[in-house]
Amino acid sequence: MATIFTKIINGEIPSYKIAEDENHYAFLDIAPLTKGHLLVVPKREVDYIFDLDTEEYANLQKFAHKIAIALKKAIPCTKVASIVLGLEVPHAHIHLIPMNSEKDVNFSNPKLKLTEEEFKEIANKISNEI
Amino acid sequence: MATIFTKIINGEIPSYKIAEDENHYAFLDIAPLTKGHLLVVPKREVDYIFDLDTEEYANLQKFAHKIAIALKKAIPCTKVASIVLGLEVPHAHIHLIPMNSEKDVNFSNPKLKLTEEEFKEIANKISNEI
Repeated sequence: MATIFTKIINGEIPSYKIAEDENHYAFLDIAPLTKGHLLVVPKREVDYIFDLDTEEYANLQKFAHKIAIALKKAIPCTKVASIVLGLEVPHAHIHLIPMNSEKDVNFSNPKLKLTEEEFKEIANKISNEI
Repeated sequence: MATIFTKIINGEIPSYKIAEDENHYAFLDIAPLTKGHLLVVPKREVDYIFDLDTEEYANLQKFAHKIAIALKKAIPCTKVASIVLGLEVPHAHIHLIPMNSEKDVNFSNPKLKLTEEEFKEIANKISNEI
């Protein structure tokens, strides 16, 4: 069965898309820790990120690098954190999270509740910096 | 002034080294969240990881990919987490952390206290898998 991220990539589940290329897709996390919190995923369904071969992994990270630079331009922050945990959804994903303190990236924090308009505005801001 | 990581790379401060190549260095975190928690750093002193250019960043991640695979072989765990926060030491670094649950990688957890012998044994186990 397709993962939820594959359904997002295929447009079967809507997402606030930031960017995509042949092998990668980036979209806003709908349960964000901070404004601009997004996910970068390989289109190929792989559960564990380090099961990607070296080149696939490096290409995914190159794509994430580009997105992270745009994210920091769009959303003022001290740094963009990059976090891969991977225990919830069995499809490898990199969290990119604008942060001003380490507390911002504690996954047990309550998630932000944003309106559709707010998500759209954030996604547009980031996309426009790419 | 050299960062603490540059001093470690140069051998001015001792470390439990896992591996190095021309541009990268990996060593155990001495305040680990779990056994095997290690750091991967570029030898070039850069504060913010996304200030590395795309190729440098991709090469650092390729090196981390190799270490992460060895780490999972050496230290049984569900997955190896990859975390870049970067607010404490102004020298980019990737945390690779063997984890069995998301709670394992909460940076506000108390750190493990290991003896020098334990650190050496862990470092050897991981190095031997590379």
